[in-house]
Amino acid sequence: MKIIIVGATGTIGKHVTKALQKEHEVIAVGSRSGDLQVNISDPDSIKAMYEKAGPFDALICVAGDGHFGPLEKMTDADFRISVNSKLMGQVNLVLIGQRYINPNGSFTLTSGSLADDPVVLGASLSAVNGAIDGFVRGAAIELKNGVRINAVGPDVVEESPGYFPFFHGHEPVSMHRVTLAYIKSVLGAHTGKTYYVFG
Amino acid sequence: MKIIIVGATGTIGKHVTKALQKEHEVIAVGSRSGDLQVNISDPDSIKAMYEKAGPFDALICVAGDGHFGPLEKMTDADFRISVNSKLMGQVNLVLIGQRYINPNGSFTLTSGSLADDPVVLGASLSAVNGAIDGFVRGAAIELKNGVRINAVGPDVVEESPGYFPFFHGHEPVSMHRVTLAYIKSVLGAHTGKTYYVFG
Ligand SMILES: NC(=O)c1ccc[n+]([C@@H]2O[C@H](COP(=O)([O-])OP(=O)(O)OC[C@H]3O[C@@H](n4cnc5c(N)ncnc54)[C@H](OP(=O)(O)O)[C@@H]3O)[C@@H](O)[C@H]2O)c1
Ligand SMILES: NC(=O)c1ccc[n+]([C@@H]2O[C@H](COP(=O)([O-])OP(=O)(O)OC[C@H]3O[C@@H](n4cnc5c(N)ncnc54)[C@H](OP(=O)(O)O)[C@@H]3O)[C@@H](O)[C@H]2O)c1
Repeated sequence: MKIIIVGATGTIGKHVTKALQKEHEVIAVGSRSGDLQVNISDPDSIKAMYEKAGPFDALICVAGDGHFGPLEKMTDADFRISVNSKLMGQVNLVLIGQRYINPNGSFTLTSGSLADDPVVLGASLSAVNGAIDGFVRGAAIELKNGVRINAVGPDVVEESPGYFPFFHGHEPVSMHRVTLAYIKSVLGAHTGKTYYVFG
Repeated sequence: MKIIIVGATGTIGKHVTKALQKEHEVIAVGSRSGDLQVNISDPDSIKAMYEKAGPFDALICVAGDGHFGPLEKMTDADFRISVNSKLMGQVNLVLIGQRYINPNGSFTLTSGSLADDPVVLGASLSAVNGAIDGFVRGAAIELKNGVRINAVGPDVVEESPGYFPFFHGHEPVSMHRVTLAYIKSVLGAHTGKTYYVFG
């Protein structure tokens, strides 16, 4: 299988890449790192990335910025950091990628546990993660040629200690469990699902 | 109670307005109709609306445009119709309104059944409704002074026959049941909930 991984060099992405590289052709993509570069906030950049990558069987996105800060001071511009990167970046990877993906291929996006289990400072990410989960359900019933779409919704991961102080009472999830969820999406047969990986 | 209803003259909003007007002071708001006007897609317009309305006890939003069309042809611009109006319009009513609302007040937003029960052509609304549901959960744990926030997520309503052909097998929900959900949010004590009204 030829698998494009956007965010392949990130905290989560590097584990997913390592696991899938063993038996598949992986094209690692980052904003500066990787085999190819893309800025997911820019639809033209996404199109150029797909043109360079050529037809593929699976696209995994483990990239997407979000704003973390108090609701009391949150502005339209703060909130749109999450919307323009994590939401529209991933949505556009699908809207544009549906024209390049092989029949029976799959898209796997990243949402997160904050959709369902919010923490203080995370309201824009609760929204954007909820949007990704809703989009995956909506897109699943329209994608053509057997193409599937799912999301993985991790809790805070064990290799992101910088976030631990904001996730009181959460047991950070192992990279192993999170990686398995991406594998389940790509090599399994489900569509329209979010695989939550709660601590 | 002083209740601002944005979208008060709409298909759903007029029923909610009629029910709440009996015992409360309602300020009806529309884009062109109503006691006051606002364009929810413009944060400056929202701020001006709150300045004119003065302190209030409840804000209900039953407004918000969305794009309905095939995923296959959907563009970033199409998708952003839903994001800029139904999502960011309602988010900004809360981000800005938290500075004007009375202690123990409430916000009630509108999402929709498509978040969970998608139909063909509705992917951007599945996303945006999911975002509203996630936002309500995230904002609920940060709002100060006992202020609450919920959403109502209606299935297609009995007075929108134009949508029926796109909702195969859905039983259109009565305006009575939908109105009750808004009343539950405003006069009840819950926070962080979406009240789905499924047919
Ligand atoms: N870490 C957690 O605990 C956690 C928990 C739940 C959900 N998540 C979600 O998982 C995703 C990845 O998180 P992470 O912690 O692994 O992130 P990370 O360590 O910051 O890695 C981000 C990856 O995305 C790439 N990237 C950054 N901006 C990009 C852009 N504009 N276009 C394309 N690629 C871009 C980076 O490549 P370059 O280095 O080349 O820029 C890098 O490979 C995010 O959506 C996050 O919200 C994370
Ligand atoms: N109808 C359904 O079956 C159904 C089902 C589920 C969810 N919903 C959701 O419920 C909400 C209301 O739907 P509806 O069918 O009642 O809508 P509608 O009949 O089209 O009414 C829209 C209302 O919002 C106002 N409005 C329009 N654009 C506005 C703007 N930019 N700023 C402020 N106010 C604006 C309109 O006022 P003016 O006339 O003055 O412009 C009107 O009062 C939408 O979010 C929709 O997605 C509807």
